[in-house]
Amino acid sequence: MPDNKAPSDWPLHDLIAARWSPRAFEDRAVEHKKLMSLLEAMRWAPSCFNEQPWRLLVATKDDPTEYERMLGCLVEFNQGWAKAAPVLMIAVASLEFERNGKPNAHGWHDVGLGLENMALQATSMGLQIHMMAGFDTAKARAVYGIPDNAAPTTAIAIGYPGDANDLSADLRDKETAPRERRELESIVFSGRWGKTSSLLKGD
Amino acid sequence: MPDNKAPSDWPLHDLIAARWSPRAFEDRAVEHKKLMSLLEAMRWAPSCFNEQPWRLLVATKDDPTEYERMLGCLVEFNQGWAKAAPVLMIAVASLEFERNGKPNAHGWHDVGLGLENMALQATSMGLQIHMMAGFDTAKARAVYGIPDNAAPTTAIAIGYPGDANDLSADLRDKETAPRERRELESIVFSGRWGKTSSLLKGD
Repeated sequence: MPDNKAPSDWPLHDLIAARWSPRAFEDRAVEHKKLMSLLEAMRWAPSCFNEQPWRLLVATKDDPTEYERMLGCLVEFNQGWAKAAPVLMIAVASLEFERNGKPNAHGWHDVGLGLENMALQATSMGLQIHMMAGFDTAKARAVYGIPDNAAPTTAIAIGYPGDANDLSADLRDKETAPRERRELESIVFSGRWGKTSSLLKGD
Repeated sequence: MPDNKAPSDWPLHDLIAARWSPRAFEDRAVEHKKLMSLLEAMRWAPSCFNEQPWRLLVATKDDPTEYERMLGCLVEFNQGWAKAAPVLMIAVASLEFERNGKPNAHGWHDVGLGLENMALQATSMGLQIHMMAGFDTAKARAVYGIPDNAAPTTAIAIGYPGDANDLSADLRDKETAPRERRELESIVFSGRWGKTSSLLKGD
């Protein structure tokens, strides 16, 4: 597995540091038991009122017809590399509380909680997942019959990370570029929006 | 630390199984270095176009005035137990891409990704976090000057899990109740919305 650990400023648990979003995948199926653990990890995320608004559509290369249908929902750029991944998913957020039909403002948020659990469970098993906003949500609604009270949020490619040399030149450069993030100073505030927290200057 | 592991149907990484959302917290500060690791974990989550739309407002009991201001943004029910936590945060989603000012539909989703990283980093250090939708977002906007192109999504209590016996009777029952989730059959579909995936019946 390529080592692409986050160059963090403060100590991170190995699993969090080692998670990343590859575009190159090995030509190797995901074992059934591991696939179940990925789904189970999402299942045990926290959610607003324990509503668990996450739903998943899943396709694997074991069923080529279904796999092609899902691949066809991705934007062309993503199809180009994601077709190497043995498993694809589309995550969907339920936008209403099941108990009372009222709007659930945290549908998208809680799908995020669930998918990060899945991402880290994947990392722990030698897999990685790559989430994509780049897919045709209207097409996904039509293809799968997703109802109006739910929103397709995320397409996901899953597999064992592969050899960056199998990618086109521009994607290879992205795959091997240093990982970058905003500084904590620009995202952590205290007392007032935009005021850098003094905690960041603490002992 | 109370053991409240998820009774999962398929194997989970220890960190994912051991994460939960307590309401009882020890009267014990979070070490500065651990607090930085929590923030760092959020920082290294994935996000749409690596926009990193997560922002955090942070208050600790080391600054009682700021702590009380943030506690006052929670709904009364949550204030009742969250006041035991040594650290409070309010997470905010940026709703526009910084590069072009266009709407970022994944703001809430990506805050979810970031917060689950934080939750699992917390678990790895003996801490737990409890996320809340129950806070007054209008008040938080006013108190902190959160701009219109951002949305307060989540209030968060952080600390070392404490003794459930310190809680009121009804909360104590919740704290010690078995953890429950929907069955995978009701959330994982293949081919069509609502059609349980045959993967769940696989070998």
